[in-house]
Formats: sequence, structure tokens, C-alpha cells
Amino acid sequence: MEHHPDNPDKPPGPLAGVTVLDLTTMLAGPYATLLLAGLGARVIKIENPNSPDPARGNALFMGRDGVKAAPGHDDDLSLAILDRGRNKEAVTLDLKHPDARAVFMDLVRRADVLVENFSPGVTERLGIDYARCRAVNPKIVYTSISGFGPDADPRLGKAVDIVIQAMSGLMMASGAEGEAPVRVGIPIGDQAAPLFATIGTLAAVLQARATGQGQRVDVSLLGTMGALVAAEPFEMERKMGHATRSGNVLARLAPSGVFPTADGHIAISAPKDAFAAGLFRAMGRPELIHDARFCSRAARVSNHAILHEMVGAWTRTLDTGAVGALLASCGVPNGPVRDPADAMRDPGLLARGETARLEHPVYGAVDDVVAGGLPIRMSDAFTGFDKPAVALGASNGDVYGGLLGYDHEKLGWLAREG
Amino acid sequence: MEHHPDNPDKPPGPLAGVTVLDLTTMLAGPYATLLLAGLGARVIKIENPNSPDPARGNALFMGRDGVKAAPGHDDDLSLAILDRGRNKEAVTLDLKHPDARAVFMDLVRRADVLVENFSPGVTERLGIDYARCRAVNPKIVYTSISGFGPDADPRLGKAVDIVIQAMSGLMMASGAEGEAPVRVGIPIGDQAAPLFATIGTLAAVLQARATGQGQRVDVSLLGTMGALVAAEPFEMERKMGHATRSGNVLARLAPSGVFPTADGHIAISAPKDAFAAGLFRAMGRPELIHDARFCSRAARVSNHAILHEMVGAWTRTLDTGAVGALLASCGVPNGPVRDPADAMRDPGLLARGETARLEHPVYGAVDDVVAGGLPIRMSDAFTGFDKPAVALGASNGDVYGGLLGYDHEKLGWLAREG
Repeated sequence: MEHHPDNPDKPPGPLAGVTVLDLTTMLAGPYATLLLAGLGARVIKIENPNSPDPARGNALFMGRDGVKAAPGHDDDLSLAILDRGRNKEAVTLDLKHPDARAVFMDLVRRADVLVENFSPGVTERLGIDYARCRAVNPKIVYTSISGFGPDADPRLGKAVDIVIQAMSGLMMASGAEGEAPVRVGIPIGDQAAPLFATIGTLAAVLQARATGQGQRVDVSLLGTMGALVAAEPFEMERKMGHATRSGNVLARLAPSGVFPTADGHIAISAPKDAFAAGLFRAMGRPELIHDARFCSRAARVSNHAILHEMVGAWTRTLDTGAVGALLASCGVPNGPVRDPADAMRDPGLLARGETARLEHPVYGAVDDVVAGGLPIRMSDAFTGFDKPAVALGASNGDVYGGLLGYDHEKLGWLAREG
Repeated sequence: MEHHPDNPDKPPGPLAGVTVLDLTTMLAGPYATLLLAGLGARVIKIENPNSPDPARGNALFMGRDGVKAAPGHDDDLSLAILDRGRNKEAVTLDLKHPDARAVFMDLVRRADVLVENFSPGVTERLGIDYARCRAVNPKIVYTSISGFGPDADPRLGKAVDIVIQAMSGLMMASGAEGEAPVRVGIPIGDQAAPLFATIGTLAAVLQARATGQGQRVDVSLLGTMGALVAAEPFEMERKMGHATRSGNVLARLAPSGVFPTADGHIAISAPKDAFAAGLFRAMGRPELIHDARFCSRAARVSNHAILHEMVGAWTRTLDTGAVGALLASCGVPNGPVRDPADAMRDPGLLARGETARLEHPVYGAVDDVVAGGLPIRMSDAFTGFDKPAVALGASNGDVYGGLLGYDHEKLGWLAREG
């Protein structure tokens, strides 16, 4: 087994040897390259020194005096960049400078992957579109993340999470009929695209390794969220007379839903006969197993309203922990409804690196901030984030001097010209 | 360029030549192997003939007489299997039969990837755990999707979407403070894991191609959903006194939210000065650009309540289309809140294959059912679903006769013994 470059006890990541140029900003793009970095790729984040990734300016910030709402010191970094910048290098390059394209193409020659989420037309204006990159490196995999696809009507404008949640149908799939749309409280409209972009990128790298030919990979925010929403046959369910929005219970899987307890809420799902019987036993009502209203899946679906009412009347009398223990002892799938701030600190998730503490590159974990980890474990490769994000341009020497081998004079010129 | 095996005009998928053994059932596992199939891998779904994938029995069904709630003919197939079975082969093998393991290991020898989502301990009992598969094929990438990780406390029981939504914190991130938890109306608790499992699998295949060594890849439902929830620093926001649940508006990005119109709802996001100015112009209130309450991002965040009220009072007076047109003309990010049944039929999504019509293997698109597509486009490879799902065991001849080269006598024995 080979070893991790910085730690002889750690094996390298599965993507060791893959170099990624990261031209992305905000959330959707940087999350894709973060996943690649967590799998061991060398990710070089390229920012304009005059207008770096706006995520560097997002509240909150962390620095020598912990987490705060506004930056107070030069070396304070936003939590957004401390999260999305992990295991990445950061260089500056003003792509609008007339000489920048030559430097950029030197990077393209040495890269396997480029990821960008510019607005349509920008890469062409900067002279760094796929055709130009391919001309210097035919093996390059060029991944574009856009709001609505590369040929979208420009009137669609800029895609942001809340717009994607709205247009994909997600907001009208949650909640109950007649209620206002429900915004999902995590930026899932921004998170779906980077997951698919990473999948497409890796598949294209596999093909490039086999054929020597890269290609363009194109993923849209609306399309990826729309594909996930379309996992439920909403149109056919509607045709069958079933409500699209069923709130916190699922009639077709009855008994199944979220129920109030004496101190919170609990999720219970018991559609199969064996689970339903377990639930009735947990409720101390074993006679319901043979009740004509509940003795088959079809019967339970028909009588879902009264069944869900009975379940809720029982859960309300006990604490969440007590309901959960009774259900577990009867083999019924269940789980407490947890606050997100608590859930991300679940010791099991932290131990598996599915969530992880954030560190400042200079001051370390000065405050106890938890962010998403890389929720993929591998038996013989390191996956996850073991290097904090770095400040704007902190990797200029390593990349321009090291990777590209520019000499002292050229490095000085680069620094002067930005 | 090579060509697609069934269509000389279509290039092959990026994963052409990758063989995947699919031991998964229900949703989380089969969605991972569906993504691999849509990228061109040969996916062989292996089912016990006596207890096939329960998704074959999920309502609704499609057959010679269209879509209906209950199956009426032998060749009716569930929409779930017509969706998740696309571009897969389906063979039967009773892994509990004493001679089945030898047949299974013949498949493992020819495979690159195995994906399973059995309950913990089942693969060991069946004799098909990673150690045994690795013994016959050291290059195998063995991907396990579990509820809570392979070493989870067995009392945690079975993981289902609603339990994962509850325990990950997702339900308490949506809605408003003091309200009941909000179940998200798509099975996102089941969808996150297969996306990460696919990423991990492809990364491990890349490494196996480089080193000749496969490995185990392990992804959990709770960990993947938990990682996505942790993208927002909920714990730090709470420490700063910000509400975890802010309903349909986002105070920190004000003006940003979902607003009622005369005929529906519209999402608007205008946190930057230029966007906010555009919104005020669209509202016919350009004087607000210089109003002390709204003239800076910090001012708008401080006065978010009155600002959002003013925006809602304006949107309420017009139809969604009219509000959208005014906002677009002023360059403000916005989008209509769409019904999921309508969103999945967006012609742009259908054209890009981000959603796709389902076909029955015998009767074709007898009803107009739309499902998720593969929302990844590639410039020089075919991606997507061009073959309908097949019936249980329909690929036995191709796989046991073709791939494994079993002779007529052995095939007859296999058919008799199941």
C-alpha cells in the first residue's frame, strides 16, 4: 500500500494523482471540488485577487478570537470558506489580465479536471472555454455546473437555491394540501448539482484514462433537483386521486409518519405486517393485530386516518426516548426528530467523519464548529478532510513555483501583475 | 470514437466495460446502481426468485392497460421497478441454496463492482461478504449502503427515509420556530446515500484501475443526510441568536424568500445591492434604493421583517408570470413555485434527459409516466436510460449462458434449482 503524502500512517486517497482546477465560487461548484479534494485529488482553487470567491465574505467568520458575525482581523476566514476550502490549495490569477491566459493554460496542461460554474458565456469571453482547454490538453475533463443548462433562455437569469427549490417542485411536495409552499431549510437546491457533477466527472476521468480523450460534462441545478423530485410519480399519484402533499404522515405506508411525544417528536414507519404488529404490541394493544381495520396493508391504508390518530394519541403520553425504546424492543423502525445543531454533533457521525470539526489554518479549532464531512469510508484509502482551508493566494508559491516550475523572476512578475 | 453496443449512432457510456453486481433492494441501493447503469456500466441485478426486490410489489403498476393501483396481469410491472430497473439486466439466484455461492463467485470473478444494502450481518451469513469476494477477485470494489454504518448499534434497527429525515435534523431545519417538524416530500433521506455511494464507488474503481486492488466502500443513510444538513452552521447560528427555522424567508439574505402572488407563489432572492435595487425598481419603488432602512446589505438584514412584508404586499397584487417578468427585466433572481407533477414535465428537463418517460419492456410508453432521468450530459459519451427495466430473471440466459458461458446442461440445472 502506498502512503499518504503528509502522514506515513495514512494511505493516500483514491484520487491521488488526479489534479483539479477549481474555478467555482459560492456553494454548488465548490462543494463538487470539495468532494474531489476529500477523495484525495489535488484541487487548486483559482481566484481573481480583485474579486475572490464571495463565500470569503459570508457571515459567520472564525479567527484568533473564535467565531463572530463580522470579520475583525485580516486573517479571519468565513465559516463558508473554512468548510468548502478544506484540502484545497488557493492561488490567485486575474483571468482578465492579458497575460493570464498563458499561465492558465500551463495549469490546464497539467490538470485532469477543470470545474467551473461561471454564468453562461463567461468562459468564452475569458478565453478559457472547453474548446480552448481541449486544444492544449485533449485529456481534460471539463465540468460545467449551471443553473438551467448551457443553452438556457437568458431570461431565466441567475439560479439560486430558493429558486431551484421553487421551480423543481420540491416546495410543493412538502407540507399539506392547501398550505403555502415549504422551503427546505438546507440548501438542497445547491447541493444536488455538485453530487451529480462529481459523479459525472469521475465517470469521465475513468473514460479518459481508458481512451486518452477527455470531454465536457454538463450538469444543471434545476435538472439535478428535478431528477430527484421526479423519483416520486407525483403525476400518476395525482391521477389516482392521491394527494401530492401529505404533510407528516404517509397514508400509502400507514402507519408511517412523525408523531408528537410528551417532549418532542418521533418518526415511525411500519408499513409491513410484521412492523405493524410490533407497533401494536409496543402500544400495549396486541388485539389490534387482528382488528379488521388494520389486519392487512390494504386495510391499514384505507383506515390510515384513524390509525395515525391512535398512534399519535399513544406517543403523546410518553417521552421520545420511552417510545423509541418500546418500538425498538418490538422491532419497529423509528427515530427521534432531532435538532440539526444536535444531529451534526452525533458522536457516531463525528467518529465516522460524516460530520467534522472545522479548523482555522493558523489558529486551529479555536471554536467548536462542526460542518459536513465526507460521508464515504474506504477500507484501504484515506477519505475525508485533514487539511484546513487556506487564505486567498496562500498556495501561489507551491503551484506556480512547484507545479509549473516558474523561476524566481517569473514569480515576481506574476506577483506584481496579479 | 467507439459506438454504443445497440446503436451505431450513439457513443458508448463513460462506464462501458465496467460490470456491476447489484444485490440491492428498495430505493437507496437500486438508485446507486441505476446511476451506474445510466453511465453505461453493465449492471446485473440479482434477485432471489422466491423473494424478489419488494419494489416489484410497490403500487402503482404499468402494463398492457396503462397505469393502475393494483397489478392485473402477469407482465404488469411496478412503476418503482420500471424506474429503478432501467438499463439493468435482471437475473435470479437463490443465495440461500447450497450451490448458489459457487455460481455467485463466478459472477464476482467477472465483475468490477458489487453493491449491496443488506442488513448488517447478512452478507456474512450468505457467505458473500467482502473478504470472500476479495478472495476470488482482489480488484472488486465492494460497496455497502447501510442505515447507520456497518458497526451500528443493532438497537437502531432498520433505517427508512422518514427516520433518516428525523434523525439527521432535516425535519427541524425546515418550517418555522415552534411549528411541528416538516417531512420533506421527496425521499431525500434515501437519495443522499446512493449519490455518495456512486461517488465512492467510481473513485475506488479509478484507484483499482491504477493499483489492481479493490476495496470496500461504506456509506450510511444517516451519515450522508447528516453531512448535507451540516452544510449550514446551525449550531453557530444558534449561538449568534439566529433562528434555526426561518420558514419561507431568509433574514440573513433579505430580501429573499417565497412570496404569495395573485395566482400562486414566487421565489425571489436579492441579497446583493444590485439585486435589491432591481427589486425596488421592479416594484415601482426606486426611492427605496436610497432608503436608510434598505440601502445596504446590513440595513436590509436588520429590517428584514418590514422589507419582506413590503415585497409580499407587492407580489400579492400580480400574477406569478407578471411578477416574474418584471423581476427578470430588472435582473433579479426569481422563479415560480411549481407543482412537482408539472415541474417534472418541464420541456427543458425532458429535452435534456433530466427527467424521462418510463417504458414497459413489452408495451412501451403505454401511459405518459415521467420519472427522474440521469441529469448528467457529456459531450462525447451517451448518458441516460435507453432500455426499459425487465421482468424478474429475464436476463438469466444472457448472464449465465453469455457472460459465464455455462452450457445447456448447467443452465437447465440452474433453472430447476432456482
